[in-house]
Amino acid sequence: MSIETKNIIVEKVKTSKIDQVDFDNLAFGSVFTDHMVVCTFKNGEWETPTIMPYQPITLDPSSKIFHYGQSIFEGMKAYKDKDNDIYLFRPLDNFKRLNISAERMCIPQIPEEYFMNSLTTLLQLDKEFIPTKEGSSLYIRPFMFASGNGFHASPANEYKFIIACAPSGAYFSGKVKVLIEEKYSRSANGGVGFAKTGGNYAGQFYPTQLAVAKGYNQVIWTDDSTHEFIEEAGAMNIFIRINDTLITGPTSDRILDGITRKSILEIAKDQGIKTEVRKITVKEVIEAAENGSLKEMFGAGTAAVISPISSFGFRETDYDLPEIENSFNQRLKKIITDIQYNKSEDKFGWRYKVKV
Amino acid sequence: MSIETKNIIVEKVKTSKIDQVDFDNLAFGSVFTDHMVVCTFKNGEWETPTIMPYQPITLDPSSKIFHYGQSIFEGMKAYKDKDNDIYLFRPLDNFKRLNISAERMCIPQIPEEYFMNSLTTLLQLDKEFIPTKEGSSLYIRPFMFASGNGFHASPANEYKFIIACAPSGAYFSGKVKVLIEEKYSRSANGGVGFAKTGGNYAGQFYPTQLAVAKGYNQVIWTDDSTHEFIEEAGAMNIFIRINDTLITGPTSDRILDGITRKSILEIAKDQGIKTEVRKITVKEVIEAAENGSLKEMFGAGTAAVISPISSFGFRETDYDLPEIENSFNQRLKKIITDIQYNKSEDKFGWRYKVKV
Repeated sequence: MSIETKNIIVEKVKTSKIDQVDFDNLAFGSVFTDHMVVCTFKNGEWETPTIMPYQPITLDPSSKIFHYGQSIFEGMKAYKDKDNDIYLFRPLDNFKRLNISAERMCIPQIPEEYFMNSLTTLLQLDKEFIPTKEGSSLYIRPFMFASGNGFHASPANEYKFIIACAPSGAYFSGKVKVLIEEKYSRSANGGVGFAKTGGNYAGQFYPTQLAVAKGYNQVIWTDDSTHEFIEEAGAMNIFIRINDTLITGPTSDRILDGITRKSILEIAKDQGIKTEVRKITVKEVIEAAENGSLKEMFGAGTAAVISPISSFGFRETDYDLPEIENSFNQRLKKIITDIQYNKSEDKFGWRYKVKV
Repeated sequence: MSIETKNIIVEKVKTSKIDQVDFDNLAFGSVFTDHMVVCTFKNGEWETPTIMPYQPITLDPSSKIFHYGQSIFEGMKAYKDKDNDIYLFRPLDNFKRLNISAERMCIPQIPEEYFMNSLTTLLQLDKEFIPTKEGSSLYIRPFMFASGNGFHASPANEYKFIIACAPSGAYFSGKVKVLIEEKYSRSANGGVGFAKTGGNYAGQFYPTQLAVAKGYNQVIWTDDSTHEFIEEAGAMNIFIRINDTLITGPTSDRILDGITRKSILEIAKDQGIKTEVRKITVKEVIEAAENGSLKEMFGAGTAAVISPISSFGFRETDYDLPEIENSFNQRLKKIITDIQYNKSEDKFGWRYKVKV
């Protein structure tokens, strides 16, 4: 193995902790690999990225991450095929989206070279942590946050870019029950809903806990002005199949431009599935559920992959989705995961082979 | 001096760093006192608060604060009078609001005893850091954040409650120029705008930077649905005087329930100033500016105290506020700061003397 270290400082662990990982019983994102990428923005520029042993981060109590929420992240996965070759899925899309989030949150742009070189070098070092079990993968978490100090409510002058990885199993176990939310909201017009920033997630926990107490797994958010339109599920974009048409809402400044979402749209079109990207009203979903034209609902995201929804609640009523054969969600999930795990041809050019 | 240490562990510094503080040239929130309070929530309960030397915090890279934005804070000040007695201003209101923010952000409630005892013990220890210079005070930052680990997007199982203090000068230097914002928004209906949570601040930085580039200091936010109503200024609530009526918007799930805001309302009523708490349209403010009935605008907040606005921008036009004598803002600021610094009677019962 030759590690390309173009402008990266590499400090290897003395002893790997891979023996402590139970690859047969992986939860999501709770055990970590040997190494991490750390890159510091200071004095107006990014310093040389360093790969170092996975270790705690030390910050001043006045560090702005604790006070003013300047934080963004990405979710990616690395997959291993039967030959132990390693693949990423559309990684440049994650890189670009990270910088889109960065701009909105006043965090400096990370250069593509820093992102891609440090990521692939990290994967080369920690490749043994990439699970091979069906449904498992190495979850990759690039993130950036304000590490500069001071209580003034203004952007920090120092930032950290970090990549940490966790060999992970499925995000959801089993089918997902969702609640269409009408009181609480995820994001504002002109807000930060399209950015993968911490605050978008923290704000969802309380309404989600209320939903969980009622027996649901996740909330489906509606627009905050009228609550008439389906937006997204917080950790997933939402797809709805009415008869044989697959529908998802348009992205906006409130909705994350999901990479799984846009991949599904392309695969569906390629498969001859009729797709519509348009606003979806809660009303039409209820009507479709009642008249039997609502065939499927599913969430789509890097962590959740494609997660079928078994039922949804709205105003004290639960609507069960039918069990159908040859569902779009199963078909689309097989196609996308076959591309990801190098089990099929990649006609879209989405697979990215990591040199080892 | 006797330090009451009811259920508090106190670890004092060996050497104070007070000699390093330039009390004549204090910025806002950038130098810190000798000690800090740290209290950890773990295994379902708060551990005993510890006062320790101000020092870095160490966290796992997967700590949820870096990823999912579970963070809240308060802003308070300690004031010294001519006898070197120490006062807080309505501290129980900060305590209560911290827990209101905590509930919305799925952070555990901190008990009143933990908050008040650790705060007052900290102030006893670090009392020499409380500035005496006019307009200066000790800025106190209680904050709480998710310190538990893991990439699953769900509330953490561990939290930190910390109080850090910074001897501080004025937040704004001079008068403030604001821009009424119509594109970007601060908060959603059903969102977290009423909570003092990090994400509310991070989301404001980019639009504020755009405003700063045009020569303004701050943005005045409008509602995200119509942009017709004045909301708040992010770090301040907004007051508008039309003729002799002092108007501020009602609090809501989008607007912070400011302690300075509600104190001003009470003082104004007591002073015989006509007040209105109602929705304020941008249109009426523009009309009032044009017909001369707009007499004053000012921001109100713990950090900013009462900050007069010298002009506001709206759609490429700047509207200057008149220079007037005996302004409400000067009068109200004198009354509130006289109470805070124990220069006047405290008929409202807001002052809280810290035992030393």
